Formats: sequence, C-alpha cells, structure tokens
Amino acid sequence: MEFTAQQIAELLGGTLDGDPSVKVNSLAKIEEGQPGSLTFLANPKYEEFVYSTSSSIVIINEAFVPEKEITATVIRVKDAYKSFAILLDTYNKISSNKTGLEHPHFIVDSAKIGVNPYIGAFVHVGENSEIGANVKLYPGVYVGDNVTIGDGTILFPGVKVYSETIIGKSCRIHAGVVIGGDGFGFAPQDDSNYLKVAQIGNVIIEDHVEIGSNTTIDRATLGSTIIRKGVKLDNLIQIAHNVEIGEHTVIAAQTGIAGSTKIGRFCMIGGQVGIVGHLVIADKVKIAAQSGIGTSILRDGEIVQGSPAFSIAEYKKSYVGFRKLPEVLTKLEELEKLLKEI
Amino acid sequence: MEFTAQQIAELLGGTLDGDPSVKVNSLAKIEEGQPGSLTFLANPKYEEFVYSTSSSIVIINEAFVPEKEITATVIRVKDAYKSFAILLDTYNKISSNKTGLEHPHFIVDSAKIGVNPYIGAFVHVGENSEIGANVKLYPGVYVGDNVTIGDGTILFPGVKVYSETIIGKSCRIHAGVVIGGDGFGFAPQDDSNYLKVAQIGNVIIEDHVEIGSNTTIDRATLGSTIIRKGVKLDNLIQIAHNVEIGEHTVIAAQTGIAGSTKIGRFCMIGGQVGIVGHLVIADKVKIAAQSGIGTSILRDGEIVQGSPAFSIAEYKKSYVGFRKLPEVLTKLEELEKLLKEI
Amino acid sequence: MEFTAQQIAELLGGTLDGDPSVKVNSLAKIEEGQPGSLTFLANPKYEEFVYSTSSSIVIINEAFVPEKEITATVIRVKDAYKSFAILLDTYNKISSNKTGLEHPHFIVDSAKIGVNPYIGAFVHVGENSEIGANVKLYPGVYVGDNVTIGDGTILFPGVKVYSETIIGKSCRIHAGVVIGGDGFGFAPQDDSNYLKVAQIGNVIIEDHVEIGSNTTIDRATLGSTIIRKGVKLDNLIQIAHNVEIGEHTVIAAQTGIAGSTKIGRFCMIGGQVGIVGHLVIADKVKIAAQSGIGTSILRDGEIVQGSPAFSIAEYKKSYVGFRKLPEVLTKLEELEKLLKEI
Repeated sequence: MEFTAQQIAELLGGTLDGDPSVKVNSLAKIEEGQPGSLTFLANPKYEEFVYSTSSSIVIINEAFVPEKEITATVIRVKDAYKSFAILLDTYNKISSNKTGLEHPHFIVDSAKIGVNPYIGAFVHVGENSEIGANVKLYPGVYVGDNVTIGDGTILFPGVKVYSETIIGKSCRIHAGVVIGGDGFGFAPQDDSNYLKVAQIGNVIIEDHVEIGSNTTIDRATLGSTIIRKGVKLDNLIQIAHNVEIGEHTVIAAQTGIAGSTKIGRFCMIGGQVGIVGHLVIADKVKIAAQSGIGTSILRDGEIVQGSPAFSIAEYKKSYVGFRKLPEVLTKLEELEKLLKEI
Repeated sequence: MEFTAQQIAELLGGTLDGDPSVKVNSLAKIEEGQPGSLTFLANPKYEEFVYSTSSSIVIINEAFVPEKEITATVIRVKDAYKSFAILLDTYNKISSNKTGLEHPHFIVDSAKIGVNPYIGAFVHVGENSEIGANVKLYPGVYVGDNVTIGDGTILFPGVKVYSETIIGKSCRIHAGVVIGGDGFGFAPQDDSNYLKVAQIGNVIIEDHVEIGSNTTIDRATLGSTIIRKGVKLDNLIQIAHNVEIGEHTVIAAQTGIAGSTKIGRFCMIGGQVGIVGHLVIADKVKIAAQSGIGTSILRDGEIVQGSPAFSIAEYKKSYVGFRKLPEVLTKLEELEKLLKEI
Repeated sequence: MEFTAQQIAELLGGTLDGDPSVKVNSLAKIEEGQPGSLTFLANPKYEEFVYSTSSSIVIINEAFVPEKEITATVIRVKDAYKSFAILLDTYNKISSNKTGLEHPHFIVDSAKIGVNPYIGAFVHVGENSEIGANVKLYPGVYVGDNVTIGDGTILFPGVKVYSETIIGKSCRIHAGVVIGGDGFGFAPQDDSNYLKVAQIGNVIIEDHVEIGSNTTIDRATLGSTIIRKGVKLDNLIQIAHNVEIGEHTVIAAQTGIAGSTKIGRFCMIGGQVGIVGHLVIADKVKIAAQSGIGTSILRDGEIVQGSPAFSIAEYKKSYVGFRKLPEVLTKLEELEKLLKEI
C-alpha cells in the first residue's frame, strides 16, 4: 500500500508543507525513519530528530515552531499523536480485512451468522448462538451455546466463550482469552471437604471493549459479571464472578479482581494489582502497580499505593521511612543510651 | 425446566410452608428475585429482603425466626446456603448434559474412549491414552500420548494435556488450562549459557480436583507433580515442577508455587501469593493475598501475611507502624534536639 | 528403551566401575531409585542415598570420594548434574520424535513448510508464512500470515502466533503461549474516551529461546518487541509492546514487563516481579521475586529487592526494621515520657 502526502493530509484534515506527491508505504519511529516512511513528532524530547529524520513525511503539531529547516514533507495537525493513531488504525483496517469461511469449521444449524463474516478454520459455534454482522472469528475460536456477539467484534485465535455470554459491538478480544468459566465458589462442609457452588450466571461485555491475551473472566454465580462499554483490559488479568467494571476503566496486565467487587468509571488500575472481593471502588480512582486493595475506596479520583494501599502521597513518605529504618533503629539505641546516662 | 415447591422440598429434605404447587424456572439473588424464581436467605444482612422479595419460593434456615410475614412459599432446611448450592448443582447437571461425538476429531486407534462420552469438534487424543466413562472433552481439547483420564471428568474447551499425565475422576478443568508443560530447569554452563534439563516426569491429578481457566501445571523433572484429591485451584495459577499440593487445599487466582515445594492439606492460600521452591507448608495453613513465602511453615494452622510473610497479627502491627513512619521520623528528630539541649 | 552401563559411560565420556552390561530403562531420583533405573549424585546433601539406592547405575562426580561401598554400578564424570541433564535430553529426543502430517489441518498454498515436519491435526498456517526444516507444530497451533519459523523449533499444542512474527531456530514454545497480540496502547481523548493506537509492529524471537505455558508477548506499536537468543521465560509471563530482553536472560513465572523497557543480558529475574515501562536494566542484574522496579538499573550485576526495589542488602535491613516497628513505637513513647519527666 502506498499513499501520497496529499492523501494523508486530506485524511487527517491537516495542512501540507513540502512536496504533496511524495509517497510512503510504511510507518516509523522518528529516530528510525527511512525514505518511504511516515513519522510524527509529539514528544518534545524527540525534537532533534525532526531535523535529521530520513522519513519522507513527518506529522507535527500546529503549535510546534521549528528551530531549523525540516527536510521532510510536513503535515501540520492539531494533535500529531492522535493523528498518527488514526493513521495506524486505518493502516491496520486495510491490512487485516479477512473475510469468508475456512474449512473445516463446526457451526450447528440453530446458530445464526451475520453478513460478511470471517470464520477461520476449526471454529466452533454452539446451539442458538447469534453472531452479528462483520464479525471475525479467527481459527480455533470456541463459542458455546446461547451466546450473542455484536456487529464488528473480533475474536482472535483460540478465544473460548462459554455458554450464555453476551458480547457487544466493536470489541477486540485477543488470543487465548477465556470468558464465562466457572466462578470460584465452594461451600465448606462439616468434614472439611468442599461442595461446589454451581455457577449459573453469565458474563456481559458491552460495546468497544478490548481484552488482552489469556485474560480470564468468570461467569457469575447468579446474575452477571459485567464489563461496561469502553473498558480496556490488558493481558493475563483475572476477573472473578459477579465483578462489575465501570465504563472506560483501564486495567494493566496481571491484575486480579476478586468476586462481587464493583469498580467505577474512568478508573486507571496498574499492573499486578490485587483487589479483594465485595468492595466498591469509586469513579476516576487510580491504583499504583502491585498495590493490594483490602477496603472500599469511596471518594472519586483518589490515588492509592501499597499493600494494603492508602493515599499515594502518604505511602511515598512511609516508604522513605522504610528505607531509613536501619538508621532509625541505630538512633533509637543511641537515644536510649544517652537517656540512661542522664 | 420448571419445578414445583413440592419437588424442591423433597429434593432438599426440607419442610414446606405455603403453596406446594407454585412453580419456578430460575434461580435469583434475594434482592433481585422475580416471580417464577427461587431464592434463599443465608446471610442475616439480607433479612429485610426476605419480606419484600418477589421470588416465588425462598429457602431459609430452620433456625431463622421471621419478624414479619413472608409472602413467598417457604422451604425450611438445616443450611439454606448449602441447599441452594445443591440446587444450583442439580440445575447445572441437567442443563449441561452434552454427549456424543462431533466431527471432525482426531483420535488415534490405540486410544480407548469409555462409555457415554462427549467428544467435541477438533479434539485430539494421542497414542495409548485411556479416557474413562462419562468423560466430556469439549471442542479443541488436546490430550497427548499415554494419558489417563478418570470417569466423569470434564475438560472444557482448549485444555491441553501433555503426554504421561494422569487425571482422576470427577475433575473439572477449565478452558485454556495447560497440564504437563516442561518444568523450568536449566543448568548454567561455563560460558554463561544454559543447558536445558529435560523434563521427563509427569503430572498426577487425583479425584474431585477443580482447576480454573488458563492455570498452568508443569510436569516433574523426574517423578511427579501431584495435585491431591479435592484440591481447588482458581484461574491463572502457576504450579511448578515437582510441587505437591495436599488434599482439599484451596488456592486463589494468580498465585505461583515454585519447584519442589510441598503444600499441606486443608490449606487456604490467597490470590497473587508467591511461594519459593523446596519449601514445606504444614496442614491448615492460611496465607493472606499477595504474601511472599520464603521459608517453610512447619506449624499446622499458622496464619501469615507479608512479603516475606510472618504471623498475620504481628504483620498487621508492623503495618500500622509503617503508616506511622513519617511521624516516627519527626518525633525522633525532636527527641534528638531535646536531648542535645539537655 | 534400554541402555547398558557401557553405552551410557561412552555417551558421557565417563569411567565405569562395576558391571558394564547392567541395563536400565528409566531415570530416577536417588532417593526413589528402583532396579532398572539410573540415578545421579550431585548435591552432597543426598550422599547417604548413594550407598542405599536400589538404582542399577549411579552417576557421580570424579571428585567424590565414597565413605562406604556403593553397590550400584558407578559412572564417574566431571559434572554429574550436567551429565544427567544430557541423558535426560537424549532420552527426551528419542521419545518425542513425532513427524508427519495429521489431518485435517489448514495450510494455505502460499505457505512454505520445510523438510521433515510434524504438523498436528487442526494446525493453521496463514499466507506467505515460512516454516523451517524439522519444525514441529503440535495440534491446534495457529500461525498467522507472513510468519517465519526457524529450523528445529517446536510449538506445543495451541500456541498462537500472530502475523508478521519472526521466530528463530531451536526454540521451544509451550502450550497456550500467545505471540504478537496487540500492545496495550490507547490515546485519551477530550471526552475521557480512549482512541485505540493501532499496533503495527511485530515480535522477533531469536534462536534457542524457551517460553513457558500461557505466557503472552505483545507486538510492537512500531518496530519490534525482541526476545534475544538463549532467553528462558517461565509460564504466565507478560511481555508488553516494544520490550527488548537481552541474550540469555532468565525470567521466572508470572513476571510482567511494561512497554518499551529494555532488559540487559544474563539477568536473572524472579517470579511475580513487575517492571514499569521505558526503563533500562543493565546486564547480569538480579531481581528478587515479587519486586517492583520503578526506575532504571544502570550498574551491571546489581541485586535488588522490594517494591519499589533497592539494594537487596539494604532491603533486608529495612525489613528487619519493619518487623521491629511495634517495638520501635513502644520505645519511642517511653523515651518521650522519660524526657517529659526530665
């Protein structure tokens, strides 16, 4: 695929400075650009490269004032980073336009498949499941019985969706994700054995959700585990039964959320965080990586760290104290001695 | 499926108070019940809902004395929570009764399949493997060579079982679980390279074990990695080579246990715990979430927290001190000043 | 398979003491050896067993001087542990010599498969992908478009390799691993929504890399996520977009490395470690399990612990202080009282 500077400027609604007919066929980082590639300058730290880059086209912010001559063709836009993201997305859509049916696959008669699907080889779709329009099920995807998948959603290779799950529109669910496995519930019995609590709820995933590779989302015991619209989950995350995650909340890799906890909207949760069950986390809360959350966070916008976590500013002070502890112990001994002498 | 109050009271051995012919077709939480649903009251916190619920049937403890009238039909049992678990389980068994063979699958001639199986599409069973009676292998399950799987065990979609693995009866192994991958063993060589230590042991999983989605259990270098009967493992857990986990121990999500560690019986291990290799953990030990275990725990019933972990009571006191550290530093400075003045 | 002591001594270049015609058909731990098995003594802790073992052959270090008679046939080598590793490896190679094609599989016409392959059932290979000689693709492996896989590499069941990935020679990639899923990149927008940053880079894995079950390695936003030769990754590890891991670095299970961080050569990283994005870690650095790395480590060979981590020696001292904190608080109060009295 090749595009001219003119085409790209039009796509982005930007203004062009330089040769409008110059062509590019790849995207590059500004410090690695080659002739024929397009790059961008968003972070001022990289300004020096804008003058020396070998890229043929560079996208910059309208507000940016160059200190020297830029040899590449320049496209000025309001937000260079966002424009580049749009270009990447366009490029991606053009290059991953799989459609059609590969064989063998296993789709039962009672299942409904929408228009213009991609059904990879070795895909399984169970009884009464309804797959929307323009859905892509990559090879080896498993869809159980009574599942609904909305228009434009992509399930990458080997995603497993248990029965009764509802998935919205325009979701991207990466390879190896498991949705709807049993919640972890066992009732202790008199003889110290455990009786399994059957898990008959389901999982609901709303529109525009992205889920990273090998993440697991358990079905509810009763009712639904719910991932609200726009939520972004990274890889290897654990979402337990009956959890609810509010709209547009973003969670980094390897975090785990225990049963029945309800997370607010627009939260940002770092990697390897653990949140215990039956809590409520307010909106716009930020949780530092590796934190452990043992009590509800009821104030919007709070920022916490530690295990157990508390206010990040206080945590940082306590941690300074932790590093000084050997010194503290020495001083304390000295003071004791001094006092005894007195 | 529809059941009368009479049928349910008989199944549970409970006593009935109200209309025995009322019918239900779903299970619900007490605060969300609709007509036609069955619910239960176990936690006294929810007592208010027992009077206002729209559910048609409610299960309560024999010992519970209502303060007002309950409009729903009531079934009294010894333990309402356990009875509800039994109902859920019955419901589950009836609704997930898959049997028969889907095509294509790949089962070699030397493999033996027991009576009444469910073999999903794209299942692979290797040389000399023996699958018991009433086993369900969901679509995309891989079973290697010389594997044994006991009666009534269920492998959900995409479970991968390497060669030589032995799995007991009535186990439930969720989607994406990997059993029998190589242990992580490398012998450092003079030139700082690593020589792989071949892993020729296997994995043994006893009866009534449940394993959550995408958990991994490595084969032993020599001998066996062993999961004893009744063990319950949550999602995304890592069990390294030659580990042994004692009967009826329960482990929450994302915990990792390093090579050759031996865990006792009836332990309860929280989420995101790390346990280093070559340790012994006694019976009935409890380990708080996110703890790190660096030394053996030899006393039965010990409860620990922290990384590295120690007695939970002491840990909580130390953590109080951690939060007060900024204050401690200030006081120490003041005392120093005062003493100098003296 | 059966081998004589003579054959084994020749394979290892060792000297033989005892019956050269004794035969073995299995490998065993020294404390568990049975007649017909071969074992070894490397760790002096196990010396007692060398005199009592029922194994038919035992491999020992040249330097080892027995205190009593050893009844088994003895093979003396320079390094018993390494020799045993070689034997295990030889045994493994002989016993896992799968070749040929199982059906059905799905390989497009434009894909190239090298000589002597093993292609399991339900394998998918996409457009223009090139698979080297002696490669094994176990059942259910997915290989996307434009992928290259080097000679002798093994992909165990259900490995998913997204398009554009490059994998070197003699790699072992365990079941459920996902390579090349989207990096986790979203540009915040004015309305607090997120715009997905398309991820058009790829993943490069060099020769002799081993990757444990269900580990995930994301593709780069631009450029490549790179795993250098000889790297060993355990299970359930998260490698984010644009990360680079230096030659022969070893990482234990459940560790996560955030975007664009560059790890040096010959590092040893414990389990459940978290490393934030955009850092540089020098060569031969060691990081204790469960540590959190928030800043670059620029000195080769540094050893760190804690979250956030610092020098392991200082960390251990601070942790001693942490355990004494309740005592510190008490003493501080006493001193205050005393001073007030004065």
